[in-house]
Amino acid sequence: MSGDVLGIAEAKPQRGGRGARRDRRAQAAAGTGRPYIQRNIPTYDILSEESLIRIEATADRILAEIGIELRDDAEAMELYRKAGASVDAVTKGVWRLRFEPGMLREILKTAPAEFTQHARNPANSVRIGGRNVVFAPSYGSPFVMDLDRGRRYGTIEDFQNFVKLSQSSPWLHHSGGTVCEPTDVPVNKRHLDMVYAHIRYSDRAFLGSITAAERAADSVEMCRILFGADFVDQNCVVMGNFNTTSPLVLDGVTTAGIRAYAAANQGSIHLPFLLGGAVAPLTTAGMVAQGLAESMASCALTQLVRPGAPTILASFFSSMSLRSGSPTFGTPEPAIGSLVMGQLARRMNLPLRCAGNFSTSKLPDGQAMQQSMMSMMSAIQGGANYVLHSAGFLDGLLSMSYEKLVMDTDMCGALHAYLDGMEVNDDTLAFDALAELGPGQHLFSTQHTLRHYETAYWDSALDDNQPWETWDEQGGLDYAQRANARWKKLLAEYEAPPIDAATDEALQDFIARRKASMPDMWY
Amino acid sequence: MSGDVLGIAEAKPQRGGRGARRDRRAQAAAGTGRPYIQRNIPTYDILSEESLIRIEATADRILAEIGIELRDDAEAMELYRKAGASVDAVTKGVWRLRFEPGMLREILKTAPAEFTQHARNPANSVRIGGRNVVFAPSYGSPFVMDLDRGRRYGTIEDFQNFVKLSQSSPWLHHSGGTVCEPTDVPVNKRHLDMVYAHIRYSDRAFLGSITAAERAADSVEMCRILFGADFVDQNCVVMGNFNTTSPLVLDGVTTAGIRAYAAANQGSIHLPFLLGGAVAPLTTAGMVAQGLAESMASCALTQLVRPGAPTILASFFSSMSLRSGSPTFGTPEPAIGSLVMGQLARRMNLPLRCAGNFSTSKLPDGQAMQQSMMSMMSAIQGGANYVLHSAGFLDGLLSMSYEKLVMDTDMCGALHAYLDGMEVNDDTLAFDALAELGPGQHLFSTQHTLRHYETAYWDSALDDNQPWETWDEQGGLDYAQRANARWKKLLAEYEAPPIDAATDEALQDFIARRKASMPDMWY
Repeated sequence: MSGDVLGIAEAKPQRGGRGARRDRRAQAAAGTGRPYIQRNIPTYDILSEESLIRIEATADRILAEIGIELRDDAEAMELYRKAGASVDAVTKGVWRLRFEPGMLREILKTAPAEFTQHARNPANSVRIGGRNVVFAPSYGSPFVMDLDRGRRYGTIEDFQNFVKLSQSSPWLHHSGGTVCEPTDVPVNKRHLDMVYAHIRYSDRAFLGSITAAERAADSVEMCRILFGADFVDQNCVVMGNFNTTSPLVLDGVTTAGIRAYAAANQGSIHLPFLLGGAVAPLTTAGMVAQGLAESMASCALTQLVRPGAPTILASFFSSMSLRSGSPTFGTPEPAIGSLVMGQLARRMNLPLRCAGNFSTSKLPDGQAMQQSMMSMMSAIQGGANYVLHSAGFLDGLLSMSYEKLVMDTDMCGALHAYLDGMEVNDDTLAFDALAELGPGQHLFSTQHTLRHYETAYWDSALDDNQPWETWDEQGGLDYAQRANARWKKLLAEYEAPPIDAATDEALQDFIARRKASMPDMWY
Repeated sequence: MSGDVLGIAEAKPQRGGRGARRDRRAQAAAGTGRPYIQRNIPTYDILSEESLIRIEATADRILAEIGIELRDDAEAMELYRKAGASVDAVTKGVWRLRFEPGMLREILKTAPAEFTQHARNPANSVRIGGRNVVFAPSYGSPFVMDLDRGRRYGTIEDFQNFVKLSQSSPWLHHSGGTVCEPTDVPVNKRHLDMVYAHIRYSDRAFLGSITAAERAADSVEMCRILFGADFVDQNCVVMGNFNTTSPLVLDGVTTAGIRAYAAANQGSIHLPFLLGGAVAPLTTAGMVAQGLAESMASCALTQLVRPGAPTILASFFSSMSLRSGSPTFGTPEPAIGSLVMGQLARRMNLPLRCAGNFSTSKLPDGQAMQQSMMSMMSAIQGGANYVLHSAGFLDGLLSMSYEKLVMDTDMCGALHAYLDGMEVNDDTLAFDALAELGPGQHLFSTQHTLRHYETAYWDSALDDNQPWETWDEQGGLDYAQRANARWKKLLAEYEAPPIDAATDEALQDFIARRKASMPDMWY
């Protein structure tokens, strides 16, 4: 899980000699091994209080006057009704819920502003909310890509590979969830293999299944085997990532899943996936207001099931190519929207999931990284606490890319250094460094330089900063080619974190029994 | 100067039919034709007042205790001395200048907080300072690159091409200066051909020569021919981009050039090019303090020559690969430094030049665009007013890239939309858009969507947002390949802006006389 194509160590503290020095430097420089980031720079607050209040008032008006349509979950309907929502039956099993202004905010006051999601390796438990930032790989792509084999449907082997590659990076903090769709496993059984892969090939926290209430329950049950039932009842060890059905619909499969996680005191993310012009207004202020309304309505259900259950406000904003109607990712308007969503989440004192390394590019090229950086900067500057899609996202989320994964994890490393901000003290102000030799003299040999030489700067494992001639002599590889070599090397060197044999056996037993209990389903 | 490889119009208002609708959409969407950006989002202020004061105090202490070494310009030395600097002779023609804390700040109070640099097309004059942002192409590369011919020394033909390509983009505002070194023209004459190329192939504002006082004078003289001598005496029509000789040295060639521009009431930029660990401390706080000290000392000279002359505080921060000692560009620490430099410039009420589309990549690939975006975001978020190196920068500034130029100008377009921020009013909050059809209904056909459809989003001319299958059928080109086709098309379609024939003849006469007056020099 260390080393790279250019001979740069990433994270393998046990090595000796030159490699070990490099490792110490890399770790000291940008905090290898930190289980999550604690931001040291303020958030980027771009909107005035007055405008924020107008957005909140619009969200409240949407909830009060248009309302949310709830489908096929009478139990959820009853919970909302008992909490004070007005409920109108639309057709059988379909209700329109309306909420008085301020009602959902009041309900959400029992939700924690910050919580810990425990990992099986306690050193990797993450704190979600407040000043904390957690990076997780991308989620939900049916296809996978690499430079050798191109685009193809994802398999469980790809899934395991992405979990391993994510685990290999010191710049991710969380193993994510559906890192790709393992389309070679039956639909009704793949959640078992996915959760197992996260448990077995990573020792970080992860997301469970949300595609059906019983799959959510299986995810929680596997965590009970791993952590013990009592621990799970009192602590968040798994989360579900739930989408609203925009505009303004909550689907019963989703709400049943949300109830399952909340009842087990586990975490959940409540994400409107808003494509402006299609399922949301084309204007960003309206898109944000709708996103806030939908996420609040979805989040609130957790508190009605079990007050205090961890819940994460979320938004996924994307724009549209006005020529083709295609969704666009990594564009400026959604980036601005994400910054504002950060302001709104802080005003509600709720953790936020927002943005990620988004791109519509079909290759790990300049477009991919330009769009990714614009989107990712909005996540970290806007104060997102849990950043799903931090690595691997290509092709408008239809494909998970092996090369992009290692490019993005490298970028995540740079963002650790960025979020550390600027330390200002007598040592960093470095008057003595300039005074030592005075005007016109290089600082290479000053005491200050020697003292800071190993730790001063973020050191990329993938960028080529060499002179053109050296780079050219070494083959003149582009970024994507270097990334291709890197993920292969990381996979070859990957070692699974140890796991207790009895626990592993119990997990495999559980999976075998569950699989045997139902016929394969492929839709 | 319009159209593109993907069939997207960029800026050609005279067209009719479908193209014209596209044009109106593109223009309305992100403000094609704006001569410069007026930012509509706040700056990103990451450092506390207390820390800013410590950096300022360190800069003052550097100036007072270590001082600045001035070489080979007795006239500048006398100006500083008369203004109150203490002057110690080091050797013949070399002096150490020391400044009491606050002295340079006091001198700089006569410098304008904002000023206009006039373009020969008055519609393209730019306002520098305050909330304004001006993008100019990259500056100073000896090499040029494209995908067909690779890396080679720049020529005057390359220079003209870069001026034409920059003029073709509605997302740049300024023609820049040494867009590449025209190495096929004698060193002592190339400034004449460079200034002429800016005047003839662009109708935007530009930078003049700074490599010798007489070349600075030639640049101003050519502007007198273009604008009239009286106009030039009263208005800024050209600027010089001057580097300090870091650490803490002002070279006589530079100061003579600064005096020439200031005496003519023309603008100047005062740039410490700080490579941490080499010519500045490795710690960012110290690098910023040094940059502030050097730029203040250099800027102040303009006010001693002619109070009120336009002057621009500047910084160029870069880090270092701690393994190889190679400079690194587009990395997180300099980005943080640039944000802080913005805060410091606003506290002095001076316009700022800072950051740009920096990268060390040798190709227009993912590394290039990731690094560029991180660096460029720091410029626009940090409040830089004049952003040199906005387009074309590759290879650690050693090469100007044809492909990167069109990639970067496209990114500059996206940044127009970003800096427009989020408009919040009843129309953009779009309650009616959601109310019209209600939950579960797509918004494609709502009145709100139809009203905003042509203008809602930034529309890239270079990104591919199509579905994978369409992109694949069209050849599966990557971003660099599309950029390659695009710059060729833009050059083929380029039309020079009209120029008065008599003025053109007078300029050519002047150049011919100046060239005839001196033998070629190649060093």
